[in-house]
Amino acid sequence: MKVSGRHYRTIWLQENDPRVVRIIDQRDLPHRFVIEDLSTVDEAARAIAEMHVRGAGLIGAAAGFGMYIAALEASGLAREPFLDALEEAGRQLRATRPTAVNLEWAVRRQLEALRAADRVETMVRIARATAQEIADEDAEHCRRIGEHGLVLIEEISRRKGGARVNVLTHCNAGWLAFVDYGTATAPIYAAHDAGIDVHVWVDETRPRNQGARLTAWELVHHGVPHTVVADNTGGHLMQHGEVDLVITGTDRTTFTGDVANKIGTYLKALAAHDNGVPFYVALPSSSFDWTMRDGVAEIPIEQREGGEVSHIRGRYEDRILDVRLTPEGSPAANFAFDVTPARLVTALITERGICDACEEGVLGLYPEQR
Amino acid sequence: MKVSGRHYRTIWLQENDPRVVRIIDQRDLPHRFVIEDLSTVDEAARAIAEMHVRGAGLIGAAAGFGMYIAALEASGLAREPFLDALEEAGRQLRATRPTAVNLEWAVRRQLEALRAADRVETMVRIARATAQEIADEDAEHCRRIGEHGLVLIEEISRRKGGARVNVLTHCNAGWLAFVDYGTATAPIYAAHDAGIDVHVWVDETRPRNQGARLTAWELVHHGVPHTVVADNTGGHLMQHGEVDLVITGTDRTTFTGDVANKIGTYLKALAAHDNGVPFYVALPSSSFDWTMRDGVAEIPIEQREGGEVSHIRGRYEDRILDVRLTPEGSPAANFAFDVTPARLVTALITERGICDACEEGVLGLYPEQR
Repeated sequence: MKVSGRHYRTIWLQENDPRVVRIIDQRDLPHRFVIEDLSTVDEAARAIAEMHVRGAGLIGAAAGFGMYIAALEASGLAREPFLDALEEAGRQLRATRPTAVNLEWAVRRQLEALRAADRVETMVRIARATAQEIADEDAEHCRRIGEHGLVLIEEISRRKGGARVNVLTHCNAGWLAFVDYGTATAPIYAAHDAGIDVHVWVDETRPRNQGARLTAWELVHHGVPHTVVADNTGGHLMQHGEVDLVITGTDRTTFTGDVANKIGTYLKALAAHDNGVPFYVALPSSSFDWTMRDGVAEIPIEQREGGEVSHIRGRYEDRILDVRLTPEGSPAANFAFDVTPARLVTALITERGICDACEEGVLGLYPEQR
Repeated sequence: MKVSGRHYRTIWLQENDPRVVRIIDQRDLPHRFVIEDLSTVDEAARAIAEMHVRGAGLIGAAAGFGMYIAALEASGLAREPFLDALEEAGRQLRATRPTAVNLEWAVRRQLEALRAADRVETMVRIARATAQEIADEDAEHCRRIGEHGLVLIEEISRRKGGARVNVLTHCNAGWLAFVDYGTATAPIYAAHDAGIDVHVWVDETRPRNQGARLTAWELVHHGVPHTVVADNTGGHLMQHGEVDLVITGTDRTTFTGDVANKIGTYLKALAAHDNGVPFYVALPSSSFDWTMRDGVAEIPIEQREGGEVSHIRGRYEDRILDVRLTPEGSPAANFAFDVTPARLVTALITERGICDACEEGVLGLYPEQR
């Protein structure tokens, strides 16, 4: 997508030196646009763990490129030590964030591609090609999610006689969370570009404010009308007919339709259900978990440092500061995700089309996973 | 309640000069403890509108004292002009915040008491006595709410064999929101003082963070175990059995049981309902609306400035700063309250006891309102 008129992806190889991976360091957005270079596995792992990059698709792509960097680092080794080193790098990258399934998926895809090769000389090339494939596929899947989701927004717009369609979204499942386009935002961008009058209620998404910082920033740059609201607001808006549909992303969705996503998503799904508002989850197939049946019981929920709740980052004059919000002596807990049971999800929007959030629906679109 | 070992109310008359009303200016809490003097109606109205004082009971008490200040200002006038001036002051005070019913109730109580007097000479004394009565009654009602609510926590503690009881609360319905004790917090303080192992999940309560700033500060000073969480967290905690009951306050509750309270309360009520967690609302009779039947449709919801969403106040080193969270160019909306329908409320805890959140339950406790 475009930043000040120039096209960017969230992760790419440096043109002059393709041993270096470049990312947009998202921590200082929307106040500062910073590009960071990654050239070691440690740097890649830290960029994921400390959320320079975040979002299901992007951390998958970052893990893919991280494995490519690991291959560069191990390129002097014989085949077996090389594969051992890559296994170890995979463990390190996977350990950074426990909830999103894309990390594991990308690491496994790299390892499978590498194990299939006989000679170390080809392996670096394979790792680079696989990392690029993962990234390209992510962008292409998001583009298709946009096409499928667009139909839903068009229908509502038609039903409303062309009046403004109000979408609520939580967290950032925008292009900054993927390689390009985003998932929850892809239908919104597609609708906006198709001339539909669409407006987005942006949940600020405490504690890390990915909505207020990142989704809002994306929408400003793409010119999409939007309003930032506190996470507490969605229920009130739905009670008063101000939300036509909800679209969120997901960090892991079971093949039975349970949706792990940013903490607070479950509350919006409850409110949507209580008010008859359709609640959609947009995801590429890389975010499905094909093994778990009960998302609420089984999906591991990352707990992050309380400091992300007790402090917040913002801009004061020309500086970006972390200010303290809570009293000294008050502990804070920081659960990063929650799980929305399938019964509250109207449908899933995938790169292959739209399906019911249940085993039958999901496996209908992905019969090879039966 | 106590601050660093010394007893305070949230509003009182200055000992040496009872023409001056003193308040705790809550805007810089928990970082700075500031006492402010109010000696004109304009100052009192500004203190309410700009939330130096806030909370249903406290803004009622502040309006009561504001009317006393108005009586002092008008004391040179004849009876009719005096009453006109007080009516005007009442309009000014009522206009500061639209949702809480206590403001209107306190102004009306003052005007009725004053109209009953014949001579202006007695009116200042009456206004002072009435303001003090409103404040004393508020404190006494909160104390009794604590006694009634304690029984609920005792029961859960017994059922759990003395294991820790986890209460979730939203916003600040603590002593800082009233004159003393608080409503939602009164049963918690009573339980803690009775030796029950009680722990509070404190919703931070964006956008103004009354939970993270005020409830947490109160609990620190009273030594009650607690944990601050982002507003998004409650549903996840309830899904995993980490909440035994929810207690919130209210800014206005209809006699049919619909509860207006800080934005986001409705979302927690939905989650409590979905997980079989009891959801209680604690209120003194001054917070009932005896005229409205449909809270969702009828209670006016205050919209405040978007700046309270786009910026946040926190401490950086020794300074208290407002930092910007959102990108330039992103509008923000700020609905201050929402309405939880009676069907989601387990019961109301009042100064007269506990009742079902419905017309029959409420009028059973308050038969004089039939």
